[in-house]
Amino acid sequence: MKLYKANIIYTRDKERFEVVEHGYVGVENGRVVDVASSANAFGVQPEEVIDYGDCLLIPAMNDMHVHAGQYRNQGISMDMELLEWLNSYTFPEEAKFSDTRYARRMYSRFVHDLWRYGTMRTATFATTHLESTRLLMELFRESGMGALVGKVNMDRNSIDALLESVDEAEASNEAFITEWNDPDGLVRPIITPRFIPSCSSAMLRVCGEQAQKYQVPVQSHLSENLGEIALVRELEPESRFYGDAYDRYGLFGQTPTIMAHCVFSEGEELELMSRRNVMVAHCPTSNINLITGIAPIRTFLDMGIKVGLGSDISGGHDMSIMRVMVYAIQESKLYYQKYKDKRFLTLSEAFWIATKSAGSFFGRVGSFEPGYEFDALVIDDSDLNHGNYTLTQRLERFIYVGDDRHIAVRFCRGREIPEPHILD
Amino acid sequence: MKLYKANIIYTRDKERFEVVEHGYVGVENGRVVDVASSANAFGVQPEEVIDYGDCLLIPAMNDMHVHAGQYRNQGISMDMELLEWLNSYTFPEEAKFSDTRYARRMYSRFVHDLWRYGTMRTATFATTHLESTRLLMELFRESGMGALVGKVNMDRNSIDALLESVDEAEASNEAFITEWNDPDGLVRPIITPRFIPSCSSAMLRVCGEQAQKYQVPVQSHLSENLGEIALVRELEPESRFYGDAYDRYGLFGQTPTIMAHCVFSEGEELELMSRRNVMVAHCPTSNINLITGIAPIRTFLDMGIKVGLGSDISGGHDMSIMRVMVYAIQESKLYYQKYKDKRFLTLSEAFWIATKSAGSFFGRVGSFEPGYEFDALVIDDSDLNHGNYTLTQRLERFIYVGDDRHIAVRFCRGREIPEPHILD
Repeated sequence: MKLYKANIIYTRDKERFEVVEHGYVGVENGRVVDVASSANAFGVQPEEVIDYGDCLLIPAMNDMHVHAGQYRNQGISMDMELLEWLNSYTFPEEAKFSDTRYARRMYSRFVHDLWRYGTMRTATFATTHLESTRLLMELFRESGMGALVGKVNMDRNSIDALLESVDEAEASNEAFITEWNDPDGLVRPIITPRFIPSCSSAMLRVCGEQAQKYQVPVQSHLSENLGEIALVRELEPESRFYGDAYDRYGLFGQTPTIMAHCVFSEGEELELMSRRNVMVAHCPTSNINLITGIAPIRTFLDMGIKVGLGSDISGGHDMSIMRVMVYAIQESKLYYQKYKDKRFLTLSEAFWIATKSAGSFFGRVGSFEPGYEFDALVIDDSDLNHGNYTLTQRLERFIYVGDDRHIAVRFCRGREIPEPHILD
Repeated sequence: MKLYKANIIYTRDKERFEVVEHGYVGVENGRVVDVASSANAFGVQPEEVIDYGDCLLIPAMNDMHVHAGQYRNQGISMDMELLEWLNSYTFPEEAKFSDTRYARRMYSRFVHDLWRYGTMRTATFATTHLESTRLLMELFRESGMGALVGKVNMDRNSIDALLESVDEAEASNEAFITEWNDPDGLVRPIITPRFIPSCSSAMLRVCGEQAQKYQVPVQSHLSENLGEIALVRELEPESRFYGDAYDRYGLFGQTPTIMAHCVFSEGEELELMSRRNVMVAHCPTSNINLITGIAPIRTFLDMGIKVGLGSDISGGHDMSIMRVMVYAIQESKLYYQKYKDKRFLTLSEAFWIATKSAGSFFGRVGSFEPGYEFDALVIDDSDLNHGNYTLTQRLERFIYVGDDRHIAVRFCRGREIPEPHILD
């Protein structure tokens, strides 16, 4: 067993932080044995004690919704709403990933930046291109970080370069899944129909069948934009609500499912999500940039719906899940200003959502409770810590004011993760 | 004349960027002579040509509202609304500035961070303490950066340690103003009654008289919070609206005036601001953190009311005016979602507000038009520039994704500004 010594902060419940000043995390076979305030508490001679001095030690970040194929567009083209934005900026960019050299250039930077911001687990959309998606899987595997990677499926309402037939999609998905579907693997496939407007009934049916057959998780988009919702109503007239359109094809919690946004989800849709354990990937930066609206995150929590945070590059502009946490709190304040019974998020709630709640999609990830995989960040905030702050204030300042320079060491599944290479 | 060569981006009008690829800015005696695409266009032999290669060269940032005395609290204590937040967190922190050693420690970091984020001109609140405020002035003077610094005045509704009598305030203000009131100086005093709830009629009267007598500008807070506005109505029952309460005492445009927030300003108040040329310091990060609301920035622009951006540390959490620009755009999108006739800010509008519009409070500052003081930033975005972007896309990415690491060189009034010292 190795012991890591530092100021330890994590969550067990969303209401409060667990804080151990100058404490120890014991780690064996990649998993947390326990957290204690003294090394003796573990009752065994540790193989090694690694002392991070006055640093903070926190669970690593999880990004539950991000488009690797939109990495180039991060931080530009913020002048349109969703459907127009997809056609004008996003689909043309994704089409470039038919070229694996372009994919290597962009995906290596994407994986590097996840590392940089301390995001050790990611659920990501690649593009429709099988070869480039394989390359992204390889880059994740080489990095040592965890990822669920989706080859995007779409057969309507996009530019020709991105459309595939249902047969092609089925064959590609099958190849991709069978190559990578190791249940213990850190890098695994996830079935990814882009969203209802991009997928015919036949496409959705194949996706649902493959999810079932290979027992792989599912990710897509849900109730992001009023124009989109109206379009879904036209395209799937038999569905009672947007989520029901996924549900009919076995894509709504039949296997573990992430739905991004859910800004306009209500009533039956929320009830079904709660019942089916569908996780919301809450993407507050994207929702503000694309003039989407503010998701009812307090309602999700009150209903017991699982939530994680997503950077949603490139609708979102910031890959740091710490920054996304700040936006989640801020937007919950605007929501609270309008609906006074929907209390805004506290810091511990936002942190719990980003770590333990999101991490649950990957197994026992996102906390330092016994048995959790040791995904962790060592935070050296010495240049921020000039004012006699408490440990939780130091964490708050790191989240609000700090950046990647303060992340000194990163662990995924117990292994220290070195900086990934940027390729050209 | 010196010539600076780079990719030059600035605004003349808010509707568009002026862009000169690999162009030249000619600078003499601290002011811009002209911008041209060729060195020959200047018609004289330059004393020196400084070539910044493929970097961007943009006007420097201006922070029109920031509390130096709240520097320690940046990024913490984000769980209350304004009036409660002032009493619980802010006033106790400001009280510490009776100790000039504490002030030196915090103010040197504050000035350093302005430099770090490329903010070359600042309108700042210090605290009520004369000695500490003098120290802040000295630190600014040593730095070479421009600042309007206010010794805060308040004689009611605060903790005892921060209250002063009107006579004390008058004497302190007079000493402070006469020591520093050089109209050509980069560092100058600004009359700073905290806000109506903190200042009796007698205090406001003295502030107005001193502004008039010494012809110094004024800064304060206006219409930030509904609770505050109700309190002002009680405290100044003869005033027709909040701004009128300042106006009665000569504190609303009789000399150049900045009013922070103006989230709930409407009707007569806006008309008076327009007529009196009162500048709004728009503080979108603070407004979202303190659950204030969203200021009607499009209305300000439509009415010809001058606007600048403020980081408002520590209601705001981020000292980077680039980040504040992003929030200004984002919040204008939420406002637009509600009021469809109030179009959201474009990037060039936000940039113009932060540079040329804000800079007008300091003279001819914030653009590269002939005669403007050369306040500029050299942006080395080579690590962000991996995707064949246009120059304005590169600027957009720097604003949305970049940080202080990308600011390679800073100029204020034609002088390259070295990194200020951090003192303990």
